[in-house]
Amino acid sequence: MDDTLNELLRRLVRSRAVAALGTLDAGEPFVSMVPYILHGASAQFLIHVSGLSAHTRQMLAHPRVSLMVTAAEGTVAEDGSAIQPQALPRVTAQGDATRLNSSSDQYAAAKSAYLERFPSAQQMFELPDFSLFTISPRSARFIAGFGKAHNLSAQAWARILETA
Amino acid sequence: MDDTLNELLRRLVRSRAVAALGTLDAGEPFVSMVPYILHGASAQFLIHVSGLSAHTRQMLAHPRVSLMVTAAEGTVAEDGSAIQPQALPRVTAQGDATRLNSSSDQYAAAKSAYLERFPSAQQMFELPDFSLFTISPRSARFIAGFGKAHNLSAQAWARILETA
Repeated sequence: MDDTLNELLRRLVRSRAVAALGTLDAGEPFVSMVPYILHGASAQFLIHVSGLSAHTRQMLAHPRVSLMVTAAEGTVAEDGSAIQPQALPRVTAQGDATRLNSSSDQYAAAKSAYLERFPSAQQMFELPDFSLFTISPRSARFIAGFGKAHNLSAQAWARILETA
Repeated sequence: MDDTLNELLRRLVRSRAVAALGTLDAGEPFVSMVPYILHGASAQFLIHVSGLSAHTRQMLAHPRVSLMVTAAEGTVAEDGSAIQPQALPRVTAQGDATRLNSSSDQYAAAKSAYLERFPSAQQMFELPDFSLFTISPRSARFIAGFGKAHNLSAQAWARILETA
């Protein structure tokens, strides 16, 4: 991808707050919503989820997940017109979900970064059943517009989106 | 659910243009974006997709899919404050995907309804590889806010959301 596309991808993933998470529910696809941040040198997704929720059980049982970030409906193109829904930029990452050990240094750094982005989540960190998971992209598919699809390796993802 | 919740669900699903579609990619979850409308007395989702795309192949191979509609980020609550990302209303339907036969009466009615909502899709109906699919909810899970989850049967879904 060229610099313009890289910048479009960065803007997309950094500007949004929630993603669609695809997990496996007894062999069937299941989609749920998760707030996320990008974290660390390899630009992993970091999510904070309840142990009572279906997606958390599903990630633990089957850590290979899919995660999509979509531009806001009504996003305006460079010519000032609203982008048609079917042309909205979006990116889907296929990744591996890993629960962070809450007594690790990695957890403390991740929690701090997460709360910087979502201060209102503080109260949820005080609930016993919530966990932080990283989702590490193995590959991603970026659709920059109608018919403009690009495949990215984990290495390309990290290079374009690294946060550290 | 009470009338207030039913109305919140109707507003959510009718106000949005795109959904997150979860399909099965060789046994793994895969999430993609689809514009949608609700159509007919049982309030099926109706989507228009390219035969060249991964999700279309995946729906044909494994018709049991998941589809999520999420309120816009920054949606304002009744008290005038922006809803926190983790509390955004969203609904996930588990449903069955069926490709419509393009020479059927059902297709003509569906195409007409789709184009009424998305006039700019006209050009895509002229491409040979696009198809209309219905996704018929078997069940749905509506999360109206933080900790406010409700399960709906197909019958409840149709009763609340019927469009005809």
